[in-house]
Amino acid sequence: MSLPVTGKVPFGGDYNPEQWPEDVWKQDYRLFDAARIDTVTLGVFTWALTQPAEDIYDFGLLDRIVERATAEGRSICLATGTGAHPAWLATAYPQVCRVDFEGRRHRFGQRHNSCPSSPVFRRLSAELARRVARRYAGNPAVVAWHVGNEYGGSCYCELCAAGFRDWLRARYGSLAELNAAWYTTFWSHTFTDWAQIEPPSALTEHWRGPDHTAFQGITLDYLRFMSDAMLANFRDEKAAIRESSPDVPVTTNFMGMYRPIDYHRWAADLDFASWDNYPPDDESAARMALTHDLMRGLKDGQPFWLMEQTPSVTACRDVNPLKRPGLMRLWSWQAVAHGADAVLFFQMRAGRGASEKYHGAVIGHAGRADTRVFREVAELGAELERLGGASLGARTPARVALLFDWDSWWALEISDGPSRLVRYQEVVLAYHRALWDAGVDLDVVAVSADLSRYDVVVAPVLHLLKGDVVARLEAVAARGGSVLTTYLSGRVDEQDNAFLMDVPGPLGPLTGVRVDEWDARGPEVVNPVRLGTGDDAVEVESRLLFELVVPEGAEVVGTYLADFYAGTPAVTRNAFGDGDGWYVAAGLDQTGVSWVVRQVLARHDLLGPYPDVADLESAVRVAPDGTRLLFLLNHRAEPVEVTAVSGGVDLLTGDRVTAGAALRLPERGVVVLREER
Amino acid sequence: MSLPVTGKVPFGGDYNPEQWPEDVWKQDYRLFDAARIDTVTLGVFTWALTQPAEDIYDFGLLDRIVERATAEGRSICLATGTGAHPAWLATAYPQVCRVDFEGRRHRFGQRHNSCPSSPVFRRLSAELARRVARRYAGNPAVVAWHVGNEYGGSCYCELCAAGFRDWLRARYGSLAELNAAWYTTFWSHTFTDWAQIEPPSALTEHWRGPDHTAFQGITLDYLRFMSDAMLANFRDEKAAIRESSPDVPVTTNFMGMYRPIDYHRWAADLDFASWDNYPPDDESAARMALTHDLMRGLKDGQPFWLMEQTPSVTACRDVNPLKRPGLMRLWSWQAVAHGADAVLFFQMRAGRGASEKYHGAVIGHAGRADTRVFREVAELGAELERLGGASLGARTPARVALLFDWDSWWALEISDGPSRLVRYQEVVLAYHRALWDAGVDLDVVAVSADLSRYDVVVAPVLHLLKGDVVARLEAVAARGGSVLTTYLSGRVDEQDNAFLMDVPGPLGPLTGVRVDEWDARGPEVVNPVRLGTGDDAVEVESRLLFELVVPEGAEVVGTYLADFYAGTPAVTRNAFGDGDGWYVAAGLDQTGVSWVVRQVLARHDLLGPYPDVADLESAVRVAPDGTRLLFLLNHRAEPVEVTAVSGGVDLLTGDRVTAGAALRLPERGVVVLREER
Amino acid sequence: MSLPVTGKVPFGGDYNPEQWPEDVWKQDYRLFDAARIDTVTLGVFTWALTQPAEDIYDFGLLDRIVERATAEGRSICLATGTGAHPAWLATAYPQVCRVDFEGRRHRFGQRHNSCPSSPVFRRLSAELARRVARRYAGNPAVVAWHVGNEYGGSCYCELCAAGFRDWLRARYGSLAELNAAWYTTFWSHTFTDWAQIEPPSALTEHWRGPDHTAFQGITLDYLRFMSDAMLANFRDEKAAIRESSPDVPVTTNFMGMYRPIDYHRWAADLDFASWDNYPPDDESAARMALTHDLMRGLKDGQPFWLMEQTPSVTACRDVNPLKRPGLMRLWSWQAVAHGADAVLFFQMRAGRGASEKYHGAVIGHAGRADTRVFREVAELGAELERLGGASLGARTPARVALLFDWDSWWALEISDGPSRLVRYQEVVLAYHRALWDAGVDLDVVAVSADLSRYDVVVAPVLHLLKGDVVARLEAVAARGGSVLTTYLSGRVDEQDNAFLMDVPGPLGPLTGVRVDEWDARGPEVVNPVRLGTGDDAVEVESRLLFELVVPEGAEVVGTYLADFYAGTPAVTRNAFGDGDGWYVAAGLDQTGVSWVVRQVLARHDLLGPYPDVADLESAVRVAPDGTRLLFLLNHRAEPVEVTAVSGGVDLLTGDRVTAGAALRLPERGVVVLREER
Repeated sequence: MSLPVTGKVPFGGDYNPEQWPEDVWKQDYRLFDAARIDTVTLGVFTWALTQPAEDIYDFGLLDRIVERATAEGRSICLATGTGAHPAWLATAYPQVCRVDFEGRRHRFGQRHNSCPSSPVFRRLSAELARRVARRYAGNPAVVAWHVGNEYGGSCYCELCAAGFRDWLRARYGSLAELNAAWYTTFWSHTFTDWAQIEPPSALTEHWRGPDHTAFQGITLDYLRFMSDAMLANFRDEKAAIRESSPDVPVTTNFMGMYRPIDYHRWAADLDFASWDNYPPDDESAARMALTHDLMRGLKDGQPFWLMEQTPSVTACRDVNPLKRPGLMRLWSWQAVAHGADAVLFFQMRAGRGASEKYHGAVIGHAGRADTRVFREVAELGAELERLGGASLGARTPARVALLFDWDSWWALEISDGPSRLVRYQEVVLAYHRALWDAGVDLDVVAVSADLSRYDVVVAPVLHLLKGDVVARLEAVAARGGSVLTTYLSGRVDEQDNAFLMDVPGPLGPLTGVRVDEWDARGPEVVNPVRLGTGDDAVEVESRLLFELVVPEGAEVVGTYLADFYAGTPAVTRNAFGDGDGWYVAAGLDQTGVSWVVRQVLARHDLLGPYPDVADLESAVRVAPDGTRLLFLLNHRAEPVEVTAVSGGVDLLTGDRVTAGAALRLPERGVVVLREER
Repeated sequence: MSLPVTGKVPFGGDYNPEQWPEDVWKQDYRLFDAARIDTVTLGVFTWALTQPAEDIYDFGLLDRIVERATAEGRSICLATGTGAHPAWLATAYPQVCRVDFEGRRHRFGQRHNSCPSSPVFRRLSAELARRVARRYAGNPAVVAWHVGNEYGGSCYCELCAAGFRDWLRARYGSLAELNAAWYTTFWSHTFTDWAQIEPPSALTEHWRGPDHTAFQGITLDYLRFMSDAMLANFRDEKAAIRESSPDVPVTTNFMGMYRPIDYHRWAADLDFASWDNYPPDDESAARMALTHDLMRGLKDGQPFWLMEQTPSVTACRDVNPLKRPGLMRLWSWQAVAHGADAVLFFQMRAGRGASEKYHGAVIGHAGRADTRVFREVAELGAELERLGGASLGARTPARVALLFDWDSWWALEISDGPSRLVRYQEVVLAYHRALWDAGVDLDVVAVSADLSRYDVVVAPVLHLLKGDVVARLEAVAARGGSVLTTYLSGRVDEQDNAFLMDVPGPLGPLTGVRVDEWDARGPEVVNPVRLGTGDDAVEVESRLLFELVVPEGAEVVGTYLADFYAGTPAVTRNAFGDGDGWYVAAGLDQTGVSWVVRQVLARHDLLGPYPDVADLESAVRVAPDGTRLLFLLNHRAEPVEVTAVSGGVDLLTGDRVTAGAALRLPERGVVVLREER
Repeated sequence: MSLPVTGKVPFGGDYNPEQWPEDVWKQDYRLFDAARIDTVTLGVFTWALTQPAEDIYDFGLLDRIVERATAEGRSICLATGTGAHPAWLATAYPQVCRVDFEGRRHRFGQRHNSCPSSPVFRRLSAELARRVARRYAGNPAVVAWHVGNEYGGSCYCELCAAGFRDWLRARYGSLAELNAAWYTTFWSHTFTDWAQIEPPSALTEHWRGPDHTAFQGITLDYLRFMSDAMLANFRDEKAAIRESSPDVPVTTNFMGMYRPIDYHRWAADLDFASWDNYPPDDESAARMALTHDLMRGLKDGQPFWLMEQTPSVTACRDVNPLKRPGLMRLWSWQAVAHGADAVLFFQMRAGRGASEKYHGAVIGHAGRADTRVFREVAELGAELERLGGASLGARTPARVALLFDWDSWWALEISDGPSRLVRYQEVVLAYHRALWDAGVDLDVVAVSADLSRYDVVVAPVLHLLKGDVVARLEAVAARGGSVLTTYLSGRVDEQDNAFLMDVPGPLGPLTGVRVDEWDARGPEVVNPVRLGTGDDAVEVESRLLFELVVPEGAEVVGTYLADFYAGTPAVTRNAFGDGDGWYVAAGLDQTGVSWVVRQVLARHDLLGPYPDVADLESAVRVAPDGTRLLFLLNHRAEPVEVTAVSGGVDLLTGDRVTAGAALRLPERGVVVLREER
């Protein structure tokens, strides 16, 4: 099973008519018409509504909501409504509430608040999903099922402790294996009974919060367990849905680079991926591109749904700036350019009360259509209508892969030493930024992905090595490709135990170096690095981490210029088979990272069409019928003019574009070129 | 009942002879004589002394203390002593200890430590008050009763939860009403049983502390409930006092702009207001003026007591600077200028141990009279003696009102969005500062106050609208007055639900604008604003919050100069009836705020006598016999010379002042001019 | 009993072969040979190994480890292994886990995790020590017993509460005495039953963490109690060891200036002192010198062991920089120069997993000898071998004492007022730095130490006065010595109650001043101070604390230049007997502190050989046979050349040094001169 079947990019989003009297609904649909909104996500937080007491299910209001949407001709993404449990459930069964990292049992409040291991929660959430599916499966307007909402957080209760022990038993088989994996001889930690094992928390192994642990192995396994425990919740509901709805695809909305949940562990269970895009600021164009690519990579390149974005502002931040004019449109098209087959908002109408009353909405408290925001939404609706089905199912023809690995993320950031200042996301973002600036179409994939289709694989901070990733990376190089990795890679095995060999461990043969020592310094310490040789050499800065490298076959590409290791390698390239393995030993600044990445790309002729035009993003999608769509996105607040690299038709305007002719994009402008060449 | 009857401004303060052997008392009174100290506050923390066990009351030592003070001819402000409960009570009844925001039951310690809902605490605190009053009510030296001490903090225990539910039942009548008020359809929060309702805390609706809540309505009501619960404690004791003391006025010492307690909800229950003035630094002259005015406003302009101030230093701050020479005197006179009918210190003699041993005192550990501090206290005592009863009962003839509203304060600061950086106090302080700089006599009043006496009403960040405040504001403008309000006003109703209309909601007709969008930015983002037109135009800065305004009748007074909304209104004025309504849509800097405020004041000819002499404060009080006292306070560390605007006698020196003649105030100098004109 | 008997400086450190298969051990010893490692610390975290269940003791593996070390000819420092309790113990007896400051009972995790008051822990830890000692006492390779590990932290459980009450009963005898000591009349705190007393924590007397308490007396006593409670744990184990090992010395590894444990209260119970040196950064040369001197001062000048240092990096810090080349050697020699009779590392071989896997080790994960770190370790091993026994038992001939007092540290930093910014360590470090720069050999001693041997006693921030310290300080001055003390000295008695006299209390006669007031300001406020008179006068800065001094016999050495107290004394000197008492009333900068200290030193002709050569440290030790060893340590990253002040032989090179000739030290160079003069 794959994506919902739609004739065009679905447009609309979260809609909560249950918060309003029914006479408001009529006004809503009139406005939806004006904005070409064809899809609504219903029922995300309706548990208290549909099950007002343990033995009472009442679908009266939801029936009317669904009937109205159906009658109005909208497609429905229907939620099971389990993203927040009702008050009566928390009161009757305190076990459904979580125990937090500090060891405190919570009581009713907030949302995303259920213990994933609670049998009561698991039974009742599945039962609700079962009943919702049974009731509405026959409605052809229902094109997708939306399970739960933004799974996340964690629980440390006794039920989770028991679940963790079961999970460990299944993973390790014996305490002897577990003790070895966790290296428990250290600090007298040998476990002699499964019951001795506690969730790692502020009351056991941790201090200074979730990233400071005495035993990385325990904490790492608990992160995996918690991700799996919530996945089990998703599976519960999906299975219940399948009992009566065999054909409608099921998803849940992810949150992009969200650390607590390893989406790669989840991906196979979703029929299609979807996610909620709330970038931290106006400057996040590259970051959003990365995240879209990550989400698309979950299902092997299959398009995803953009399930939520705000049309204007968020509310949850300390400071919630407006999306400037044109940004919402631009970013919506960026999502499509990177594989989104739906463009949805949170939310259709602004709630009156509670913590999201100031969150942006298509329709504000005054119900007006003559606002800037509504106008921009409606214009986008019209554009998407013009696009029709051209992009549906289209794939990104990437020859470059960026590896993204939750295990490495976790292992790096819970590590004591070498440096708490090296953050996984920041390093990945820097390497991605270099690729993005170069205009490369890329996939962001798990370390377990098939790498045989790529010419270049970039693996920043591949801290933890698992499975046969090293063999597959070597295979890329062996057949002529390039592999690029960095400092703090190849350090630990799947259990976070150091390799008993030179750093970078099993990556040694591919990189042709060994790391003898590593120096960590505060951000105020800069070690200049010279990259390249002769007249082409450039000097960049490095910070935070400096590995001292001994080449064992690799050639030196860059050298440190300061400190007692001045003159030693900071960047190396190792010939391997028909290709090569690159190693960046220093925390290079963005200029340095980009220099190295472009060296690698240039070897494979992989620079994009406008690598030197800053903030002009390009992305290609190839439709199932072979049509190539070239998306050009001008992230600048001013116009840009370039030479068209291919001819075709801009699907947003109908204008013809001639290869070699000037192509002008206004500020925050978008071109969707159906290439003809 | 009103203020204690005194013949002059009472002078003295907190005195704890129970901490000392009786031979020290004699030394104390000799020093009190030297400093003209005529009033002592006794017994504030004597519960453990007067009730050493549940069934034992022992007034032996307190008797001697009171007898000595009486014999020495001092007036007594006598405390009930319930500001901290005794250790035996906490041990015998853990319920009297609070449960904190994190859900932790405290055990014995600190002070202000009692659960307001504990029946045991309520019974025993009232009983102690009853016995104290019964014992000492006949002593004519007792001029006032001092209940508890600095009520504050909060409790989240089961008893408070039950109390909260009762309070809610009384407020809403039904769960249906409560669910509507709290907007519980959002996030599946519908309550189906009162017992499901929990105090909003770190274990239920909150994260990142008390200001981050999933349900603003719940949190807002809990703030109200907690304020009321402590008020009930005050009422318990006051009622017990009244059983034997029908005529002596009762107060408790407030803390100025103290967020947790809505003093407007308390004011009617106090016979007179009193407060403890501990400004954060040397630069707080305007802030103190505001706070005095707020305290005076509690009882409709009736004078208040300055119950505590330090003669020299605090101890509780990270850094505790000395009050520079002359400041203690200057600030004492400032209090009188703003309505204080008593000037009292904490404390008479410095305690030897525990957390206030370094807090300033009239008499230090060495018991000397030859210290700078004692000398300044004694000089002030002499001055107050010279003043006599001239200022007692005098009123401030204000034609300007500044609205201060705890509900708006709470609602703004617990809101998710638009900006956590906009702080209620800071905005109010900026508008007050503009008024203070202009030398205006003003009242700081509740939104429920009678506004018919004012020509100008300034209502910054009137976020939450309740009662008939809008009608009364409109009435001010209709009869020719001016109303000034700002961004983030008129957003929510009494339950923190957004108005289903254009912002600023019901303030729309008065202000003649609608707000289409709002942009929040970090403090580093400045949008310049041009105020006024032509040659008189000035350019100022705005920050943090920028509302995008569509005039609907209002004229534009100031415009944004940058960003995509450059050229749109930042400040407007709307003719309304015979007056007008002003709206400031941007977070103007102090210069901008002052410009706007002076525009408004100028229309009503309300600038003070020295609006352009910085840091020269003026304030008028009119005695019951009609005598006008003009207070001039030079907050500079250098002398200032001005022209006297009225003639009369300086009551501190006996010097005559001639209108139109030069008047020189030394650094930190004070004139109390009994005007003759 | 004194230090272990060794023929040379023991070299080696913590070794955990239990973490490795036995075939690795062989490789280890080959590398130990290469590095001249002759001493291993074994068994520090072996409780789970040696007692896998309550009724099972299994020394099989430890036997093999000890046998191997013995067979390889190493000396053994054998640990009792109680630094972390095993999982089964925590599960079976939750009482062995601590309750933290927040009132939360911890469960199994981390290390240093046992409640010191738990009878179960006390019984079983002593029993383990008993069995270890019984088993290995006969092995002559065992030269020292290592009890527990890095005692520290604190517990707030019910058992500790009961222990605290017992401790208080023993200290005060009656509640009346206790109430007087704690000044409980303040805030109604009178205790009427011992059972009412609670450990001072976040749930009772504290807010904002352990330094903010309502009752300093309670908190101070709890700090003392907790230090004593852990000392009782040490005594338990030591007594159990002594049952079978009457002659082998016992120690535990201290942590230098570690606030929670008053090592002066412990010192008598250790046969010899040892400590773990992990300086925060590269710039800590003076700080390390101070700490070595403090550790040496614990046992009246007896040499100590450097029990741990990292050969390269730490892991527990946010940023873990490498020790630059030569630093490890330099700092090792610095330890010896200050009295270390052993140089040991943590750790011999890097662990594979958990929180110290990135902590530096002599042998890394790859097991190489060709690393920089191993090479430097081996070179140091060779040097120590050359030194042989020359330094063993040698003493420092100090004529200057620096007082260090945990009670003053605690009292100052838990005080409310005058300033939280004045930190005990920082002030002590500044005064020590002045002495260190001047090249003075000094002892760092407790206030109870015999001061009769010193010409100069420096007592910064002697906040709390206890015992007869004042009389002994006066005696120093009376016989011609100099005593130097500072602001915030002489404030409180042993119970933290203010003296009922002028500040600085009983130090008044010695200093000849009284302090009338004190002003605290933020670090941005500078008051310039002029030191000295005439042409020699210098102007320095003072910050944070400014006491206003009235001389009562003292001469003025320095004066404030600003604020209302400009012209009043900031530094004074008071003739007292044949000597003098100095008082520094202001928070002088380092230049100012050094100026004053050098004035004092110059009067006694106590400047070191190179007082004006920055970062060239000198230190003298006198061997039992009278041989003088002069250590010269160049802390610069560049060479330094000086004139030799004495002739002799450099024991590291065998080179002769001639007095008066040039002596060149390379960067980070060391000379150990056996003086001949």
